[in-house]
Amino acid sequence: MTTPKTTLPPPVARAPLSEEELDRLDAWWRAANYLSVGQIYLLDNPLLKEPLALEHIKPRLLGHWGTTPGLNLIYAHLNRVIKARALNAMYVTGPGHGGPGLVACAYLDGTYSEVYPDIGRDADGLRRLFRQFSFPGGIPSHVAPETPGSIHEGGELGYSLMHAYGAAFDNPDLLVACVIGDGEAETGPLAASWHSNKFLDPVHDGAVLPILHLNGYKIANPTVLARIPEEELMSLLRGYGHEPYLVSGSDPAQVHQQFAAVLDEVLENISDIQDQARGGTATDRPRWPLIVLRTPKGWTGPAEVDGLPTENTWRSHQVPLAGLRENPQHLRQLEEWLRSYRPEELFDADGALVPELAQLAPAGARRMSANPVTNGGTVLEPLRLPDVRDYAVDVLSPGTTVHEATRVLGTWLRDVIRNNPRTFRLMGPDETASNRLSAVFEATDRVWEAQMLPTDEGLGRSGRVMEVLSEHLCQGWLEGYLLTGRHGLFSCYEAFIHIVDSMVNQHAKWLKVAGEIPWRRPIASLNYLLTSHVWRQDHNGFSHQDPGFIDHLVNKKAEIVRVYLPPDANTLLSVADHCLRSRDYINLIVAGKQPALSYLSVDEAALHCRRGVGIWEWAGNEASTSPGTAPSAGNQPGSAPVLPDVVMACAGDIPTLETLAAVDLLRQHLPQLSVRVVNVVDLMRLQPASQHPHGLPEAEFDAIFTTSRPVVFAYHGYPSLIHRLTYRRSNHGNFHVRGFQEEGTTTTPFDVVMLNDLDRFHLVIDVIDRVPGLAEAAAPLRQRMVEERLRARAYTRAHGEDDPRISNWRWPYAPASSSALSAERDN
Amino acid sequence: MTTPKTTLPPPVARAPLSEEELDRLDAWWRAANYLSVGQIYLLDNPLLKEPLALEHIKPRLLGHWGTTPGLNLIYAHLNRVIKARALNAMYVTGPGHGGPGLVACAYLDGTYSEVYPDIGRDADGLRRLFRQFSFPGGIPSHVAPETPGSIHEGGELGYSLMHAYGAAFDNPDLLVACVIGDGEAETGPLAASWHSNKFLDPVHDGAVLPILHLNGYKIANPTVLARIPEEELMSLLRGYGHEPYLVSGSDPAQVHQQFAAVLDEVLENISDIQDQARGGTATDRPRWPLIVLRTPKGWTGPAEVDGLPTENTWRSHQVPLAGLRENPQHLRQLEEWLRSYRPEELFDADGALVPELAQLAPAGARRMSANPVTNGGTVLEPLRLPDVRDYAVDVLSPGTTVHEATRVLGTWLRDVIRNNPRTFRLMGPDETASNRLSAVFEATDRVWEAQMLPTDEGLGRSGRVMEVLSEHLCQGWLEGYLLTGRHGLFSCYEAFIHIVDSMVNQHAKWLKVAGEIPWRRPIASLNYLLTSHVWRQDHNGFSHQDPGFIDHLVNKKAEIVRVYLPPDANTLLSVADHCLRSRDYINLIVAGKQPALSYLSVDEAALHCRRGVGIWEWAGNEASTSPGTAPSAGNQPGSAPVLPDVVMACAGDIPTLETLAAVDLLRQHLPQLSVRVVNVVDLMRLQPASQHPHGLPEAEFDAIFTTSRPVVFAYHGYPSLIHRLTYRRSNHGNFHVRGFQEEGTTTTPFDVVMLNDLDRFHLVIDVIDRVPGLAEAAAPLRQRMVEERLRARAYTRAHGEDDPRISNWRWPYAPASSSALSAERDN
Repeated sequence: MTTPKTTLPPPVARAPLSEEELDRLDAWWRAANYLSVGQIYLLDNPLLKEPLALEHIKPRLLGHWGTTPGLNLIYAHLNRVIKARALNAMYVTGPGHGGPGLVACAYLDGTYSEVYPDIGRDADGLRRLFRQFSFPGGIPSHVAPETPGSIHEGGELGYSLMHAYGAAFDNPDLLVACVIGDGEAETGPLAASWHSNKFLDPVHDGAVLPILHLNGYKIANPTVLARIPEEELMSLLRGYGHEPYLVSGSDPAQVHQQFAAVLDEVLENISDIQDQARGGTATDRPRWPLIVLRTPKGWTGPAEVDGLPTENTWRSHQVPLAGLRENPQHLRQLEEWLRSYRPEELFDADGALVPELAQLAPAGARRMSANPVTNGGTVLEPLRLPDVRDYAVDVLSPGTTVHEATRVLGTWLRDVIRNNPRTFRLMGPDETASNRLSAVFEATDRVWEAQMLPTDEGLGRSGRVMEVLSEHLCQGWLEGYLLTGRHGLFSCYEAFIHIVDSMVNQHAKWLKVAGEIPWRRPIASLNYLLTSHVWRQDHNGFSHQDPGFIDHLVNKKAEIVRVYLPPDANTLLSVADHCLRSRDYINLIVAGKQPALSYLSVDEAALHCRRGVGIWEWAGNEASTSPGTAPSAGNQPGSAPVLPDVVMACAGDIPTLETLAAVDLLRQHLPQLSVRVVNVVDLMRLQPASQHPHGLPEAEFDAIFTTSRPVVFAYHGYPSLIHRLTYRRSNHGNFHVRGFQEEGTTTTPFDVVMLNDLDRFHLVIDVIDRVPGLAEAAAPLRQRMVEERLRARAYTRAHGEDDPRISNWRWPYAPASSSALSAERDN
Repeated sequence: MTTPKTTLPPPVARAPLSEEELDRLDAWWRAANYLSVGQIYLLDNPLLKEPLALEHIKPRLLGHWGTTPGLNLIYAHLNRVIKARALNAMYVTGPGHGGPGLVACAYLDGTYSEVYPDIGRDADGLRRLFRQFSFPGGIPSHVAPETPGSIHEGGELGYSLMHAYGAAFDNPDLLVACVIGDGEAETGPLAASWHSNKFLDPVHDGAVLPILHLNGYKIANPTVLARIPEEELMSLLRGYGHEPYLVSGSDPAQVHQQFAAVLDEVLENISDIQDQARGGTATDRPRWPLIVLRTPKGWTGPAEVDGLPTENTWRSHQVPLAGLRENPQHLRQLEEWLRSYRPEELFDADGALVPELAQLAPAGARRMSANPVTNGGTVLEPLRLPDVRDYAVDVLSPGTTVHEATRVLGTWLRDVIRNNPRTFRLMGPDETASNRLSAVFEATDRVWEAQMLPTDEGLGRSGRVMEVLSEHLCQGWLEGYLLTGRHGLFSCYEAFIHIVDSMVNQHAKWLKVAGEIPWRRPIASLNYLLTSHVWRQDHNGFSHQDPGFIDHLVNKKAEIVRVYLPPDANTLLSVADHCLRSRDYINLIVAGKQPALSYLSVDEAALHCRRGVGIWEWAGNEASTSPGTAPSAGNQPGSAPVLPDVVMACAGDIPTLETLAAVDLLRQHLPQLSVRVVNVVDLMRLQPASQHPHGLPEAEFDAIFTTSRPVVFAYHGYPSLIHRLTYRRSNHGNFHVRGFQEEGTTTTPFDVVMLNDLDRFHLVIDVIDRVPGLAEAAAPLRQRMVEERLRARAYTRAHGEDDPRISNWRWPYAPASSSALSAERDN
């Protein structure tokens, strides 16, 4: 079998730029390069009005030159076509290390001085612009929230193309130019992103123009895509469904002409695709164009340093000329380099960009650095949310009726989608139906631009649900969508959300820093719904059992992170409603999809969620027992407040179920024992108020958890997290936490719970072991609990399913009043 | 510009199987399918000797049928060519959900009964085989450590191809057949894996044969690669550098012939590639063959269920026929389905596979399920490790000389590589030199099969260093390498190791379960070196600052996880030596690459690392002060033991530096204050012995940290981790921890430390605020510390670098004896 030759794109011979246009465009590029080098090196003497001296040089040289000239070239050329075609465009910088380039371009087009008035368009402004870069108290070395026009940090590589697609969704007039570094292209997330074009609707979405920058080198190595034959690369890009255009060279004039010609052609091509799709004359998936730009790394920088080739090698990656203090030759070389851009032609005597160059940039919001969508909060509109009361389930008596919480949520989400047909998307790695949110398909489709067959269901060219078997893509698309001023929810199996740990780190950092920048406006929160959670992956086994994402999130800045563990359907509705209204947070909701007991009516749920943590008086027996008559005897007669013998706390649906079943056993067998039940919905309530904005004040915490009684805490995740959140609380020494102990396999649901000692029987044992003085009186019950565990295990192994006496348990007590929650603690 | 047509591979017309071969091969496949369905459904009646009744059916139907027939077909055909060509082959199951298939194949070739003698090759064995699957006390539903022949779990998708390459490296005679699911192919890690062929040396490595299984559907959606035109797919695969061969169909006989023909051709092709490379007649990167197999999802299963198409749709993904108790028609359909495989032709009356089928499998270690490399511990040989003493730096007086710890380690690693030229690899995402391990390049190259240029340095067709800008690939290659019985080290920027959080979860789960399986032998530990860590990414900024991977790891099973924070060069050597000798752990080493003070000689370092935590008596002043004369007055005269006024604890290189500098300030300005310095190398020593095998017994912990004195703990990562590890300790209430508070940007090193209150000045303030009675006497010092912080900040902002008085600080006290560590606590 022989390999057919794929054809290289024919070289573009046209030279669309007039000589004057070429000169000006090149001058703008030189100006951007000059400002980039200046930022990396200069403290002062920004216009080189005097010979460069050591005192003008920064003591620490930090920044990445290698990728910068390419980024600047693309920016300059995009400016040209934006003006010529009145485009609405933005720029995503995959090689985010090239921060000085994007800052330079934003300065040249005037945006920078508008958002940072102290960086004026004069010599002093230039001096400040240079000095602040990578300087204490200044700006970061990478593209960052501080950079106008950016929605992309790029310190961690791999997410540019997914961010670009996220920005383009539902922005039909937008062109997102996305520069992809050839280093970044080696990452998994970027490699997956190429197939995003199977999810972009040419009718309702904007266009993404990927520009693969073959810069040739990483920190110390060549890049893979720069070192495969060009035919192989073109075959790859066509295999991704693109029409590749190649621009290659090191002579600026030639590259300018080629790039300009290709850009014109590509934009025509995009216009045609959109016209045909929107006019209804094309329904097939288009082959979107893509540009490959192969230029030298560190282009226009020092060709050689100390006799070693530097331009066009990895030695240009960061700072090509270092050690200037020790090496006067390097200082001279730097001056030559800077002067090679002929700054005297670019800036006037006062340091302002000369007018014929300044006019090359588009005006106002047409500037890529000033495009409003890149400061998403400025275009954000609140969602029109249906009233959750209309979707709630009836709960006449707690713990007696069964619902699938996510299925209920799905009906509300369906109408969220109906009410907000262009500003809300639901992401999921092939799990929307599996996570039982299927009601949304009554209102919308899964987006699918690839081939469709008659047997397919719920697929459409446009739709609100995005499913692809890549958590990275779901996360990255959603980030791009949120950062450009829209809303969304990502539903995911709990164990596999760890796949995006690193991405959520970076988004949390973005939110933290953006929150400190006055001109950045708040954006919609990043909302996760983790269902198919650790306690109900018994059928999928150990690989699907991991509740650690909560721990991961809690390390982020407290201002950013919210964690909710709604115990039933109505609380899930209430929490979801709250999260979709919030701004600038990362909201994590963990909730079950399996049939589970409901405890609270919708009003009770709303109240409980507002409190975040509450005593479930209907579940405990404090009112009907005489605390202190139990052997713990902790209450002195007449002393106040009267305390229970034990607090049974729970967070999460399964822990709540097991806790209530344990309370039932205690109430049956130790009726004198005074038990308080506390349910935690908002995990951050546990932290001290000094540590988290949601933290309960000490007095409230103590009123709920007591300062002296044992607390048996059944928790959804790893027990250590509860200790970590509560170790400063006065009663922490009495906290005894059960949760996931990393014991799992394929078995029954209750068996997984037992493997981790979170089951009702073990919780009863824990109470007996913790409440002082109970050991003797409760010894028979304790023994019985041990036997119940053995019996349950034996039943499971014999029958392959849980004992129905366990799985069909219901709360057997009628509530004292019509409300399952007393309102007294609501304030 | 028009798209050139890429040519589809010509259909393979040959029919290499004789009718008898075809019949037998098909019968073996039917047997595997029968056993797969049996595992999913049957409790009993394994040979269908009686009509199928509800009592024979499992109460819960768990498992994935959809992918299984394809996996079985490939396995059957590989058996044929292994026998025909005496191949040494193994099988990596990307669609790991197809667990029943791989169990069935291992049972059919006899391996299963060898490792699990209770699952015999008779009717009772069949019954047990069926019953145990996805059953409490049995085996998981996915391919797992329990599955003979597997190195791959596959519950979390995306890692098959990188595991396959890891297995092939340095196994020149091995063929690794790797089935890649078309769902899995949408993930980022898998998408990046295709380029692994640029890192496989045809001379010294084995061959990987990727088999892309176009099964068509995920849980609820079609797959991308199954819904793009075949020409586009072929273009993509050629772009990945492969020579694709296509087999497509739904008629078993036709697919058997086609697949057999293609497999023959592909293996010839691989032989040719290897012969030419090994004979020196080819030096270019070969185009390795690849097979695309397009067959129906749920092939041979029910065509329709309840009137809906099932075979060849997503409805076949898991259990196509459910609700058998409620629906007698489904039970009949299941029986028909099972009988369609004609079990009576496959198994004899006793339930043994008929001999003419049994002989189709290869024998002994040629069986893919019994290949010794798939139970890596059986072929593992210890590394020949050079004596670290020969690489140690001289430390005559602690804290006075400066070394780059990782650079020193690099010299040792260079000789580890020299001593173990075929069993050790160093992985890194383009950071080996950046992480200052460059000495390894004196001994070896970076592997690079793509184009090389004369200006390249340190690249070679074979080598021990693997660099690619993908943490996923580094991790996955290394996992595959370790699981097949070799050794390695992964060096990574600390912040970006989170990219593989999810992969390390799955590897930890594998190690935990494998450790419980008697026939699985211990493998070399997975070793991480995290350098370029949070405190020295001042130049790269906030995106590069994250110490949370430690927290992530600590959630794993205590038996698996080890965390080391060596404070200097010699301790790093000692720790690395220990880790490379260990088995079945995940070892995390966090160490700096920047010039930093050395404290311990190599002998002291070895002793300190053996202890894991120790009092640095040379640094404290307990011997020369009279504790109790300080205002804390905690020691009653004459009472024992005599306690210091404060314990200054530290873990990590920068925290150690800042702690010692703080101690210097305290000794200068509060000479009466009795200070103890404790350094922690092995973080797990802090946990109770009941929680971790390395945990210090309570008495030892109390002897070191006291039970009553303030402990000011300077820690490398998030402070909460120290609280989490120590909350059960008696003195925990006195622990005051400083660490990373998620405050970062591009600035100077000391400024980052100050932003997070971990600096020497703040530690002094913490001591003053914590030691009872010190407030008044130390008020001037406290004020001075506040001013020093302001001064340091101001210096940094004015000069762009740290005050040299701070960065050049050295420990000013001569040690009392020639040893910096007293030996008294060594036992």
